[in-house]
Amino acid sequence: MSRPQTEEQAVDSEGDSSLHRRDEEGTQSSHRMLGFSDALLSIIATVMILPVTHTEISPEQQFDKSIQKLLATRIAVYLMTFLIVTVAWAAHTRLFQVVGKIDDTLALLNLACMMTITLLPYTFSLMVTFPDVPLGIFLFCVCVIAIGSVQSYVLMVTVIFLPHISKATTWCKDKLMGHRESPAHNVEPFSIDLHAPLSKERVEAFSDGVYAIVATLLILDICEDNVPDPKDVQEKFSGSLVAALGAYGPQFLAYFGSFATVGLLWFAHHSLFLHVRKATQTMGLLNILSLAFVGGLPLAYQQTSAFARQPRDELERVRVSCAIIFFASIFQFAIWTAALLHQTETLQPAVRFGGQEHAFMFAKLALYPCASLLAFAATCLLSRFSTAIFHLMQIAVPFAFLLLRLLVRLTLAALQVLWNLRPEHPQPGQGEPEAQSQLLPAPC
Amino acid sequence: MSRPQTEEQAVDSEGDSSLHRRDEEGTQSSHRMLGFSDALLSIIATVMILPVTHTEISPEQQFDKSIQKLLATRIAVYLMTFLIVTVAWAAHTRLFQVVGKIDDTLALLNLACMMTITLLPYTFSLMVTFPDVPLGIFLFCVCVIAIGSVQSYVLMVTVIFLPHISKATTWCKDKLMGHRESPAHNVEPFSIDLHAPLSKERVEAFSDGVYAIVATLLILDICEDNVPDPKDVQEKFSGSLVAALGAYGPQFLAYFGSFATVGLLWFAHHSLFLHVRKATQTMGLLNILSLAFVGGLPLAYQQTSAFARQPRDELERVRVSCAIIFFASIFQFAIWTAALLHQTETLQPAVRFGGQEHAFMFAKLALYPCASLLAFAATCLLSRFSTAIFHLMQIAVPFAFLLLRLLVRLTLAALQVLWNLRPEHPQPGQGEPEAQSQLLPAPC
Repeated sequence: MSRPQTEEQAVDSEGDSSLHRRDEEGTQSSHRMLGFSDALLSIIATVMILPVTHTEISPEQQFDKSIQKLLATRIAVYLMTFLIVTVAWAAHTRLFQVVGKIDDTLALLNLACMMTITLLPYTFSLMVTFPDVPLGIFLFCVCVIAIGSVQSYVLMVTVIFLPHISKATTWCKDKLMGHRESPAHNVEPFSIDLHAPLSKERVEAFSDGVYAIVATLLILDICEDNVPDPKDVQEKFSGSLVAALGAYGPQFLAYFGSFATVGLLWFAHHSLFLHVRKATQTMGLLNILSLAFVGGLPLAYQQTSAFARQPRDELERVRVSCAIIFFASIFQFAIWTAALLHQTETLQPAVRFGGQEHAFMFAKLALYPCASLLAFAATCLLSRFSTAIFHLMQIAVPFAFLLLRLLVRLTLAALQVLWNLRPEHPQPGQGEPEAQSQLLPAPC
Repeated sequence: MSRPQTEEQAVDSEGDSSLHRRDEEGTQSSHRMLGFSDALLSIIATVMILPVTHTEISPEQQFDKSIQKLLATRIAVYLMTFLIVTVAWAAHTRLFQVVGKIDDTLALLNLACMMTITLLPYTFSLMVTFPDVPLGIFLFCVCVIAIGSVQSYVLMVTVIFLPHISKATTWCKDKLMGHRESPAHNVEPFSIDLHAPLSKERVEAFSDGVYAIVATLLILDICEDNVPDPKDVQEKFSGSLVAALGAYGPQFLAYFGSFATVGLLWFAHHSLFLHVRKATQTMGLLNILSLAFVGGLPLAYQQTSAFARQPRDELERVRVSCAIIFFASIFQFAIWTAALLHQTETLQPAVRFGGQEHAFMFAKLALYPCASLLAFAATCLLSRFSTAIFHLMQIAVPFAFLLLRLLVRLTLAALQVLWNLRPEHPQPGQGEPEAQSQLLPAPC
């Protein structure tokens, strides 16, 4: 915890202690406002996956060029929106690493800023749908300028000028009403360190928001669309609710698969950031890339189940799903690798090279890349059973996570036994950490 | 901060200090897992508003009995789901007020529990749609039993038995391998205080999640449905994108209105909980009631704009919107009233009777109930201008929030002047707090 702001926030959120610092002008810790902003921004970042997920392709229709083009456009819009919103989020994070305290005006301005950011995805997709009409670009630029000017206004007014203004007003007050209050606030010299690491709490909060909305995106659809109509049940399924629900089977399977994968990727992310001391810019960028692929997961799963009747397309879908899972998890792995490069600054001792949790963390983060790569390879060899392979992976991976600690211990014990059998081992007491660091490939 | 768990969590989230407490079994602070669970649960709680929002009624169709019945059923499903999920959330909160530390198994179990909770809304709406078929009730009960058994398993195993088991295993280890580790953990006596206040942090996190998802529910639809089709623009609007976008005007207005109202209600909630020391059960219940109405806001706004062409229905919609805003805000006000009843325990000195922020907090929380009541009354008198009145309220209230501090100060100053003009005022130094407490009605 190297930044003073974060410590102040943490202390302020503790309740009573904040009272003594809050003066009568109504300044307050920005802790909760940032949490709310993170939740909003993460929802906005992932919202453009919906047009992709809802691209209607009837089973009869061939997966032809026009649909491929439509899908490709929508995926590009999603990825660009994700990056644009995360850039806005990063700027917001930077700003509030400088602005430690907020007042009511600032909270309201922040809300206005959030509302403008919610329009970014819309204007961007307008821009892409109508490349010839300047209105889309115009609206998009207006949004970006509005966001930029609100943020720089906040920076200028509250950080640079406000201390001086408040000093001046206190001085005037004292002159007019007589000196009855405590002496003026200290005006601290202002500085921004652009190379400072991102706030770890906000990286976590933003990631949590993305994982939470992605995990529940499919239930939003299921709750709305998949409750059968009583008339349909009477007519088509002769009153049998079970048969009617059976028709929605693929959607439910997609939901379970999506939720389990997103949940477990969150779990790996959570385990990793538990041992991260601070997040460098590289780690932040890799995290955003990982999240962008996580946002694509519901799409992958839904398309997999929607095309279960067409064997040829199904194979493609399963491969796309595997690829998305692979990229989402390999970027998580890359975060760890990037952290290991500067491990004394970024990681806690337990997960550094030779630490007692190092091998376990390696296994946790390597599980999904390996599983998805294996499934991908298996679909190439056994293309007829691609759905079965994919479902097997979905079922096997959660159990693997449950048994992971046991498996890693068994592997390490086996390696240690092998190591001890060799005659030339130097210090028997340090056998385990050495076995680990030999087990792992060098990350750089 | 009366509970030791919360303090431990707060300290643990600080990073380095947590390392010394985490032993090699992989236990960790549950801080971030709870944040993720809160995000998921708040999304699940609000998800059933979507079938209500998306109830399609074409402008030609009369608002007849069958649609009224459909809407009423869906609203009832939404409210019941909200209550069921919040009860599950409250149980989750209670559980993790006792369970301070988690390990990987617990984190995975929690994910499984979350997935089961996401199915609650679906099974409940199945139960309501098919009241005669026992399958819906059966599935719902299976979900509830599964959630209950996971939670009680966690309680039994990790809280009651785990300390003893871990003591026993440490003892066995010491016997087998020789005493080389630190002495066994202290087994603390176990107790649950069912009347303990809810964790303030989790009430805030859950509320933030609900506000965030409600604020962005409409943008989810807008981004997907309201990007005009290039063909339509060419055919219907002779290539004019502005005219095509103008057709979506009401939806955008609905979005801005909804976002502004939800944002400002969040702002009032945020201001209130900034001064709350701990949340009693009554406050928690009132908060949930307030949130249930907040969840209805997108519905209200969307329906208001969708029926802009039918003057008779429009009046009803505007009134429903005003009523929803009124109930959402009056329950917020009730939280404060409930807090004032036990103000020494629940509130910080600044907002108690006579505190310097008391009048301002009163004004903040009373603004929306008053504005919505006024708008409702105005629609009764001037029923022809109901939409204009409603839009005027939408625009006026954010400005009122911006100028609120000024307005309250002016009012207080005017009252103080009036008070000072009267000859029999006893202590001139305490004139302001007295004027305030006379200004405000007694809350009990």
